[in-house]
Amino acid sequence: MGNQKRTLHLNLFVASMGHHEAAWRHPSSNVEEIIDFSHLQRIAQKAEQAKLDSLFLADRYATSRKAVKYGAISGLEPLTLLSALAVVTKRIGLIATVSTSFNEPFNIARRFASLDHLSQGRAGWNIITSGTDGEAQNFNHDRIPDHHVRYERAHEFLDVTLKLWDSWEADALIADKATGIYADNSKVHELNHRGKHFAVRGPLNLSRSPQGRPLLVQAGSSEDGKAFAAQYAEAIFTAQQSLADAHAFYADVKARAAQHGRSPEQVIILPGICPIIGESEADAKEKEAQLHELTHPAYSLLQLSNRIGFDLSGYPLDGPLPELPATEKIAGHQSRTKLIRDLAEREQLTIRQLLLRLAGGRGHRTIAGTAKQVADELEAWFTQGAADGFNIMPQITNGGLDDFLDQVVPELQRRGLFRTEYTGKTLREHYGLEVPANQFAGSHQYQ
Amino acid sequence: MGNQKRTLHLNLFVASMGHHEAAWRHPSSNVEEIIDFSHLQRIAQKAEQAKLDSLFLADRYATSRKAVKYGAISGLEPLTLLSALAVVTKRIGLIATVSTSFNEPFNIARRFASLDHLSQGRAGWNIITSGTDGEAQNFNHDRIPDHHVRYERAHEFLDVTLKLWDSWEADALIADKATGIYADNSKVHELNHRGKHFAVRGPLNLSRSPQGRPLLVQAGSSEDGKAFAAQYAEAIFTAQQSLADAHAFYADVKARAAQHGRSPEQVIILPGICPIIGESEADAKEKEAQLHELTHPAYSLLQLSNRIGFDLSGYPLDGPLPELPATEKIAGHQSRTKLIRDLAEREQLTIRQLLLRLAGGRGHRTIAGTAKQVADELEAWFTQGAADGFNIMPQITNGGLDDFLDQVVPELQRRGLFRTEYTGKTLREHYGLEVPANQFAGSHQYQ
Repeated sequence: MGNQKRTLHLNLFVASMGHHEAAWRHPSSNVEEIIDFSHLQRIAQKAEQAKLDSLFLADRYATSRKAVKYGAISGLEPLTLLSALAVVTKRIGLIATVSTSFNEPFNIARRFASLDHLSQGRAGWNIITSGTDGEAQNFNHDRIPDHHVRYERAHEFLDVTLKLWDSWEADALIADKATGIYADNSKVHELNHRGKHFAVRGPLNLSRSPQGRPLLVQAGSSEDGKAFAAQYAEAIFTAQQSLADAHAFYADVKARAAQHGRSPEQVIILPGICPIIGESEADAKEKEAQLHELTHPAYSLLQLSNRIGFDLSGYPLDGPLPELPATEKIAGHQSRTKLIRDLAEREQLTIRQLLLRLAGGRGHRTIAGTAKQVADELEAWFTQGAADGFNIMPQITNGGLDDFLDQVVPELQRRGLFRTEYTGKTLREHYGLEVPANQFAGSHQYQ
Repeated sequence: MGNQKRTLHLNLFVASMGHHEAAWRHPSSNVEEIIDFSHLQRIAQKAEQAKLDSLFLADRYATSRKAVKYGAISGLEPLTLLSALAVVTKRIGLIATVSTSFNEPFNIARRFASLDHLSQGRAGWNIITSGTDGEAQNFNHDRIPDHHVRYERAHEFLDVTLKLWDSWEADALIADKATGIYADNSKVHELNHRGKHFAVRGPLNLSRSPQGRPLLVQAGSSEDGKAFAAQYAEAIFTAQQSLADAHAFYADVKARAAQHGRSPEQVIILPGICPIIGESEADAKEKEAQLHELTHPAYSLLQLSNRIGFDLSGYPLDGPLPELPATEKIAGHQSRTKLIRDLAEREQLTIRQLLLRLAGGRGHRTIAGTAKQVADELEAWFTQGAADGFNIMPQITNGGLDDFLDQVVPELQRRGLFRTEYTGKTLREHYGLEVPANQFAGSHQYQ
């Protein structure tokens, strides 16, 4: 850490209109482009021109009639969209969010292996467990399963998925026309997994993909989430409001990874940052205020209630946040709920003030300033042990993403903090991550 | 039927190397291209240049260590591949196979709606229930659920999926920047479905797609399959060995559709046809014999055993097919098993002879002949009430697909039987199928 050659990593968290909840209402936004592929293609290609490590798409498995009145629709399913974007990009990584709570490992192992083949080694999976009753109600549940149960399922889901990816060794596919031998099936493995949540025989019905194991990304920062991340995650998206909090999280997760026998450098920590850039700081603040003007408090409150799993609709907007359940008793999103509660307490915010603080990035750190100010902040976090890079979440896409890519990225490049050309081909290579050994290699269990 | 304006429909059943089980060993095949996107892109673009209605990808949810020794790997997951192909084609329809037995309706409704948005109205779903124990064993079962149970789940799956697609009316998305109203949520509907297999609240988290309802395709020809098809299917892929059988199936399904109050013309029947084309009939037969030479009887037997759910490995290759269980007692693929048994009986085939009869198309009709002979056969079936078009399954892709597109399609065009330009934009328009009315439209249930 801190040596001259260490450079930072940048992931673009794609939001069609932008991450500010009123972004779609901004004059620069074109609502015709909300789910328009050519718009998303331009975003991806522009990020690739700027040599970013990866694109990332979040996901939810529900919306509600109330929420859609003012926004909150997800857009195209992430793996569908990234499969299409794989064809119109060449180098940038493609990270899709998929929930372990509402899917089956065989399907997901196969879809990521397919994307990894299609993109020639650029697939990544942001692993989530989902956290709302609304999502559970689209998948045969009345309420979201308990936090701990979701993580228990996630652990088993990962165990099975990793085995499926390893079920074909890299040199198993021979396709020898002369002998008619298609695969050396001593190098193709059954799992015969029988666990609490899943029974999966294997092997996968697709040969090993270029990365072997698509990149594993994780975003939950609860106790369960950090334990999961320390064991599996190779990149971590996290929401951190201050350098001190980010520093503590960084140290904690790296130490936990080491306890799992992993090299701390093989876990890349990427706090979210929601920039809004102006020619001066005042100009940036003015832009931010303009966006805040476009929010609907009723909508913001609904979003916040959904995020923390606590209905705030009865509480006065100009009063304080009521006392929320203890973190460990929250079934839904524990770490984000804790972050929001701590933020409101620390800054003594009314609900109305809190809503505006969350409007730009839902709890991720927002910065309104000049390109130089944004670059300074990224450099400070990066050099002071709080980040290995950043999850970039422009508050506005049209104009705002451009400001970041055209002004902040070149500034980081001038400072020697960011690549000016891709040196690797795969997503793992961009992040400097090794391909873990195949757990079945050399076992020749069937010979 | 039979009037001058009636023209036939052509779907290309994509197989990377070809439909003959030894296709990958043929000298014209390049094994480097088995899962290579640029190869698949060339296939898709060539089919579009020939003005075919659609591309179709089959799917299975398992392979086995035994099978992969000689072949039988599935390739990229169909919706992943079609999402990528959507970007490099403009007009041709994109039909993906997805099983109702190993998925959840919310996920599948969303993925097809996403592909339909991405392709601007070219998505179709080939609905299968899957039929092998090997597949079930990748999804927490020991054996494949009973045929009737699978179809019961499929009916409920379709009911839910259609409601999810209808959960957004076409004009629900407003995105009015001035008022900040994103959706008219009197036109966004919850399902609140609670059935035997699924509980799904809705609405879908994606606005209505261009076709409203992606094209519904079905391929099972059992009693359960035909009942399902008559209710839901808008296009039917079917395996028919003779014009007489095809004629009977055609009449049966059209009559059943009418019993459901549907117009028989809104159900397009597409028998599979596996051509191998030569300069003379003898040349074509010679090509076919060359492919047959490349088969492995042990592999062919394994494939057949898997297809009929009956282990034939103990039976002499030069003896007859043993007595199989009664059709209605078969848990797996009832109609294909019946077709294979009838074929072996009618032609008094040994197991070895049967394997070669199935090698080219797994029970679909094979034709080895000149382009004119193939066109004659297609015309005969089309004009004699046995088909509305065909599911084209070239035995060899490299060379063989080209022969069909370069020779048979122009011959059909000269005869006025096939389009020379696309007249529609969506997959439904290619097939002349209407968009069914939205079941929620005008209900305004929440106002």
